[in-house]
Amino acid sequence: MFTNLITDVDGVLTDGGFYYSGEGKILKKFGPHDNDGFKMLVEMGIQPVAISADMLGYSITKKRMEDMGIPIHLVSASTRYKWINDRYDFRKIIFVGDGYFDIECIKASRYGVAPSNAPDIVKAAADFVTTSCGGNGVILEIALSMMNEN
Amino acid sequence: MFTNLITDVDGVLTDGGFYYSGEGKILKKFGPHDNDGFKMLVEMGIQPVAISADMLGYSITKKRMEDMGIPIHLVSASTRYKWINDRYDFRKIIFVGDGYFDIECIKASRYGVAPSNAPDIVKAAADFVTTSCGGNGVILEIALSMMNEN
Amino acid sequence: MFTNLITDVDGVLTDGGFYYSGEGKILKKFGPHDNDGFKMLVEMGIQPVAISADMLGYSITKKRMEDMGIPIHLVSASTRYKWINDRYDFRKIIFVGDGYFDIECIKASRYGVAPSNAPDIVKAAADFVTTSCGGNGVILEIALSMMNEN
Amino acid sequence: MFTNLITDVDGVLTDGGFYYSGEGKILKKFGPHDNDGFKMLVEMGIQPVAISADMLGYSITKKRMEDMGIPIHLVSASTRYKWINDRYDFRKIIFVGDGYFDIECIKASRYGVAPSNAPDIVKAAADFVTTSCGGNGVILEIALSMMNEN
Repeated sequence: MFTNLITDVDGVLTDGGFYYSGEGKILKKFGPHDNDGFKMLVEMGIQPVAISADMLGYSITKKRMEDMGIPIHLVSASTRYKWINDRYDFRKIIFVGDGYFDIECIKASRYGVAPSNAPDIVKAAADFVTTSCGGNGVILEIALSMMNEN
Repeated sequence: MFTNLITDVDGVLTDGGFYYSGEGKILKKFGPHDNDGFKMLVEMGIQPVAISADMLGYSITKKRMEDMGIPIHLVSASTRYKWINDRYDFRKIIFVGDGYFDIECIKASRYGVAPSNAPDIVKAAADFVTTSCGGNGVILEIALSMMNEN
Repeated sequence: MFTNLITDVDGVLTDGGFYYSGEGKILKKFGPHDNDGFKMLVEMGIQPVAISADMLGYSITKKRMEDMGIPIHLVSASTRYKWINDRYDFRKIIFVGDGYFDIECIKASRYGVAPSNAPDIVKAAADFVTTSCGGNGVILEIALSMMNEN
Repeated sequence: MFTNLITDVDGVLTDGGFYYSGEGKILKKFGPHDNDGFKMLVEMGIQPVAISADMLGYSITKKRMEDMGIPIHLVSASTRYKWINDRYDFRKIIFVGDGYFDIECIKASRYGVAPSNAPDIVKAAADFVTTSCGGNGVILEIALSMMNEN
């Protein structure tokens, strides 16, 4: 039914925080459960893909996604819809995002998901709002909900 | 109607935390949504300005604000009111602050805003208390509320 | 009655967060009360043992456990049940975990505990769900509950 | 009426977290409001004093307290009561603590305070439980409550 889960990174796989030193963005906080969730999705035949518009923190994001074995692409907020549409079929994807500029993709996807920490306007656009907040089990919660449906 | 949004940094654009090592204040935690909010304000013709009294952590604050393209000024708590009054018209500004010494500016501004994490005494002085807490969407929430008003 | 308390680390003794830089996992956040809790358990004759499946962050975990004087072992999620069963008697242990793959050990233990931040499916398997969340007093809460029982 | 406010550091002036790398405890998170609170207390004639039992993170604690101009002493949990009793009059002090081993001093003090994040057993011993949690305005809240009483 679903071919892919496409997820934003900051605010979904992290708590959304950009930890800055005087050198710039140097840390992000990821969580302990999403790796389990990604593995379950793969077992169900749903391939995870991560996209991020955060150019300044991309080396951090890339390192974490590589540690989990998930493909990651740098895609700006304004080209996000087109980027997905050129490569995937929105009718067969789960899209997860927490940002104002994610609303278009959340609406276009077969199953649009927002984490509990997303702004109200983003959550209002989603098919499913997780009880988990970003960086604390969002992907695991989606994977478990998929298992229950099958 | 509004010419400027003037915002404090710590506790509004961050979670308020000062992350210390033995060397001193080395990290602050900013959020993912405020950059979107600042862009919307600029599109509405409201220029954002950031002020901070945190001398010890100023290089961190400055780096983040430069990354977002927002002007930042080091202004002590006790001179804050005068500093703004000399440069702007309080009747045309939105002021956002979470500290005890922000109360004077919150009251003087046309639209004084406090984030949900501010002490009660600060929130009691505000025209608007965001549901977002510092470092998690305060500026975006203000920008969205301005859009709805227009 | 209990010979050992065996506890997972990430999400129980920490808030579950993996703080990443571009170099990888570099920080974890532990809490102030668990050291007190471990001392109380030892005084009651219950020996604490920590296990972790987090290979990438093991040097961090190891350092903290050594600072508290608690033995720590690297045990993968899939071999966790067997590892415990080969060394301990499940009927005499308290097991604490917050992950999906901890459910088997939580159920097998005489007293299975999950912290408040664990996913619902994990908490449903536990004999006791702490009001404390990971990294903020889980072990102390268990130790105090044991004192009250005696 | 009160000569001193004596406060624990971790969990009162911080969120209680010990941020570890493989090198050990390297970061603590302090908050934006306590500096304002300490200044108010001094203006009321109440001298602040900080004590900490955290030897491993003492250089971090010391740096922050020096930045705020508050005297800090390394005092173990077991000798805390005697240390205070030898130097101060418990009938004239405010004591703030969040740990299990702070209960004795909280009870002995004229005004014993616990932050909202303290374990229930600690809060039950306090004369006043702040609505603020550690690292987010505990001292400011106490200072404001003192102002209202005068």
